[in-house]
Amino acid sequence: MPDAVSIIATKRDGHVLSSEQIDWVVDGFTRGTVADEQMSSLAMAILLRGMNREEISSWTNAMIASGTRLDFSSLPRPTVDKHSTGGVGDKITLPLAPLVASCGAAVPQLSGRGLGHTGGTLDKLESIAGWRADLTNDEIHSILADPAVGGVVCAAGADLAPADKRLYALRDVTGTVESIPLIASSIMSKKIAEGTSALVLDVKVGTGAFMKTAEQARELAAAMVDLGTDAGVRTIALLTRMDTPLGLTAGNALEVAESVEVLAGGGPDDIVELTVELAAAMLAAAGIDDVDPRERLRDGRAMDRWRAMISAQGGDPDANLPVARHTHQVTAGSDGVLTRLDAMAVGVSAWRLGAGRERQGEPVQFGAGVTMHAKPGDAVRAGQPLFTLSTDTPERFDSAIDALTGGWDIGADAPPTAPLVIDTVR
Amino acid sequence: MPDAVSIIATKRDGHVLSSEQIDWVVDGFTRGTVADEQMSSLAMAILLRGMNREEISSWTNAMIASGTRLDFSSLPRPTVDKHSTGGVGDKITLPLAPLVASCGAAVPQLSGRGLGHTGGTLDKLESIAGWRADLTNDEIHSILADPAVGGVVCAAGADLAPADKRLYALRDVTGTVESIPLIASSIMSKKIAEGTSALVLDVKVGTGAFMKTAEQARELAAAMVDLGTDAGVRTIALLTRMDTPLGLTAGNALEVAESVEVLAGGGPDDIVELTVELAAAMLAAAGIDDVDPRERLRDGRAMDRWRAMISAQGGDPDANLPVARHTHQVTAGSDGVLTRLDAMAVGVSAWRLGAGRERQGEPVQFGAGVTMHAKPGDAVRAGQPLFTLSTDTPERFDSAIDALTGGWDIGADAPPTAPLVIDTVR
Repeated sequence: MPDAVSIIATKRDGHVLSSEQIDWVVDGFTRGTVADEQMSSLAMAILLRGMNREEISSWTNAMIASGTRLDFSSLPRPTVDKHSTGGVGDKITLPLAPLVASCGAAVPQLSGRGLGHTGGTLDKLESIAGWRADLTNDEIHSILADPAVGGVVCAAGADLAPADKRLYALRDVTGTVESIPLIASSIMSKKIAEGTSALVLDVKVGTGAFMKTAEQARELAAAMVDLGTDAGVRTIALLTRMDTPLGLTAGNALEVAESVEVLAGGGPDDIVELTVELAAAMLAAAGIDDVDPRERLRDGRAMDRWRAMISAQGGDPDANLPVARHTHQVTAGSDGVLTRLDAMAVGVSAWRLGAGRERQGEPVQFGAGVTMHAKPGDAVRAGQPLFTLSTDTPERFDSAIDALTGGWDIGADAPPTAPLVIDTVR
Repeated sequence: MPDAVSIIATKRDGHVLSSEQIDWVVDGFTRGTVADEQMSSLAMAILLRGMNREEISSWTNAMIASGTRLDFSSLPRPTVDKHSTGGVGDKITLPLAPLVASCGAAVPQLSGRGLGHTGGTLDKLESIAGWRADLTNDEIHSILADPAVGGVVCAAGADLAPADKRLYALRDVTGTVESIPLIASSIMSKKIAEGTSALVLDVKVGTGAFMKTAEQARELAAAMVDLGTDAGVRTIALLTRMDTPLGLTAGNALEVAESVEVLAGGGPDDIVELTVELAAAMLAAAGIDDVDPRERLRDGRAMDRWRAMISAQGGDPDANLPVARHTHQVTAGSDGVLTRLDAMAVGVSAWRLGAGRERQGEPVQFGAGVTMHAKPGDAVRAGQPLFTLSTDTPERFDSAIDALTGGWDIGADAPPTAPLVIDTVR
């Protein structure tokens, strides 16, 4: 008969937890018989002692078993989803989901809201008038089954890995977030429970990402690919750079507008490149090898899907996007080349302007954020605008400017260009 | 401005906590703004990462500051206390406190109740009709000031290091008991707050003790001696063996009777030896060097103090002690010499007979326990009684016998004798 203290002591003393121990403790946590103070002590022991592949797999399965698992196997098309570990200006889901749907896959993209300096996909889409993030499982199913839509971006239901939701909130306040086994199982339990048959992971690396080094990112990617593979989900991970923001905007409506530019065949090069790379990986994982996603951006079929997806969730794709009431420009102090633009600085600045939230449940400002007028490698002139800051609450400008301070450098020579995709783990 | 997550992360990542961080987190825990799940996660990080001498000292001071600190400096005699880390049959406090009081020191002995396989001093004394464990601070003071008594064994008040009480209960259910820094600060915060000016620690080592090796025990002893010294308490630790029970009894009233034998000048050799060794250490710590404690046992003055102490707390020193209604004898299976008698086996057996409790607040049976008829080195004959088990609830005999099974060996040759006191740490 397992008990919480002996399970905690097993991991504390550096031993391997059995799947019976893991099932017992996660089930007890879900039902409330294992207390928060026991789970947080176990989480700290896991963070410091680690878990092996079997333990991570058992842990993930126990999280999935705490709720219901969706099933899209009756759909006539292969399902494929993407997950990003979070970056500044990362609006890739917005053009990507309709693009991949237009190529013949069904895309069930269960997403989250922003917390802290990285934005949330649902917050961005909610800046579109009428658009609804909360769908029933039947609604999700019928949108995916509709051959003219085939993609859905919506909130995960309360019954999807509920133990993981509780554990995540607990880890957030107990200093136990930074564990690769727990991060991997948290992400993958939701993605496996979501019922996708293929999955592409965008694991961010760099100063603006949770994983600061390629080594950490590779470890996390490998753990997640193992979990997906063990659960029968064809899983590929791309390691991508997150030192500088993606695209030229950070903020909800600002990022929607930029995404629509990409769907219209334009948009910043880095957004287009990453969207197409991830689309290619998703299509490969879904077993679709006869479509060129770049072509779908050019011929307008991705844009048609976008409009269909927005409409299917109650949104008006032609509505004007919210615009912040106040703007402030930050200008370059000297001539030269922008040699560095720090993602974290821009993310925190946008957050402080009102684009993000400090606590779960707080509202966000749809129009708030940062628009960048130069990216690393661009020539700039003294007095030229580098950033436009937007907010409905101008008293926030000072702290937003503070956040940007020291976040960029102007020098004589352009920095070496580095590819956006560092590595692929499969 | 400190916050709980950054303090947890500091220790999690192997850094040193500042005294400001420790004060903040312990104060928050006491006031309820640092949650149990945060404190347990921090406790696990401390268990796995350790604390240095300064951190342990700050932690201990913060525990003391959570309540009130007693002050016996107005007493005309030096105060000295003893603490044992707990062993089977360890009734030493009972003869020791009156013995040391009879030698001219004031002995404020704040004690606890038993939990699990080790007995509690207060439970033992409560088997004496009328005796009260709960005294006010004024009562403690006036008993210590009375030159005819000068010793008190009572419960620690709720206001003595209350944060430690809450933390101890939390550690008990979160797998975070086994940390030498936390054990040392838990014991020493109570002893320093108690206001004694000198302290002798009996740190048990062996199969029946919490510390299984002399190395662990020495580490714990050194940590506690450092804490006492830093707080201005003259502190000495003796490392003493706890492989086999102390004396011939384990159980509340049984141990009182054995203690009274020692005070009458008799009793088992090991109890007499350890009582006298600890008394000598206490007198040395208290600066009293002109009294031989053995003499006080012989001349009846220690017994007089015992009677005065019991009476001062409402007890009747002449009352008959409770006797269990049922007994069962366990006999030797062969001729030979008792080569091993395991303390843990005897302790668990006495506990199962009703001498101890499983949960805080449960009553104990005063008459229950184990009487040993042979100790390691004694010759035994097949069929001779080895143990008498006593209980009011005879349905417990089977599980008490189970606990003893395998707990002793009979062989051909007497085991080597080892001294009871292994080492002194000062």
